[in-house]
Amino acid sequence: MDKQPGAMGTSAGLALRLGQATFSVSSLLFMCFGVSFFSYSYAPFCFLVTTMGLVTPWSLGLAMIDTFLVLAKRPSNQRRVLSAVVLGDWVLSVLSLAVSCSTASVADFLIASGNVYCRDNICLRYQLSAAMAFLTWILSSASLLFNLWLLPTLY
Amino acid sequence: MDKQPGAMGTSAGLALRLGQATFSVSSLLFMCFGVSFFSYSYAPFCFLVTTMGLVTPWSLGLAMIDTFLVLAKRPSNQRRVLSAVVLGDWVLSVLSLAVSCSTASVADFLIASGNVYCRDNICLRYQLSAAMAFLTWILSSASLLFNLWLLPTLY
Repeated sequence: MDKQPGAMGTSAGLALRLGQATFSVSSLLFMCFGVSFFSYSYAPFCFLVTTMGLVTPWSLGLAMIDTFLVLAKRPSNQRRVLSAVVLGDWVLSVLSLAVSCSTASVADFLIASGNVYCRDNICLRYQLSAAMAFLTWILSSASLLFNLWLLPTLY
Repeated sequence: MDKQPGAMGTSAGLALRLGQATFSVSSLLFMCFGVSFFSYSYAPFCFLVTTMGLVTPWSLGLAMIDTFLVLAKRPSNQRRVLSAVVLGDWVLSVLSLAVSCSTASVADFLIASGNVYCRDNICLRYQLSAAMAFLTWILSSASLLFNLWLLPTLY
């Protein structure tokens, strides 16, 4: 098997995973840190917290596996493992894109309509959280594409 | 080259394209038909009209090409054509998912906040339009996956 850059078990793949974990954690922090309970009454904000709460352990876990594979100098060429990783990446990248768009549109709407809850720049933080979720999606779909490109060559 | 079901130039691929065109046209109709100019002041609704206005001619054009290929009984095995189709499908499926989630969340928010413009069940139509855009995304990503699965075998 060729060693596809960016796929599982390469240093580029490890960097992608670490970037995903960083962005998803910052999205969670922007959304949750010091915010009152009000924000959780909106479904998109709730979904963003749920999705980023799934992306963070997934990326960190795969980053650990990638670290091991990079140090052991052997890329993963097991078909079933790669299929599971592709499936998980696909689900999580779709969810990331969906929640980032939903959160951004609701935050924009709250700002445009001059909602009373947007005091203290809190809606700006929702927008930043959506932007971080969007960056998570970009990196996650990059991982997905690299692994998906590799997958048919294993069959 | 194997004849991958659902890829370009097969009858399943043709059915997927026709489904995409149907759902994107119905999404456009739900959003635009008989609605006042007010709705276009919201960015997500505007983007939905733009995206579905791109998906419709793309799907119809590819459906025509698929019809030709099915009738001529030869699947497309040209690498560059398939790459262009995969790229276009990828962009349009990402846009479809993004606009459907944005529209759905803003429509839900308008209904939940009891907005005065939601009279005459107009927000229900926005929700239906978002649902149609979501179905367009499902079919579009199915086309994308089938073609993407085929692509590395051509290199």
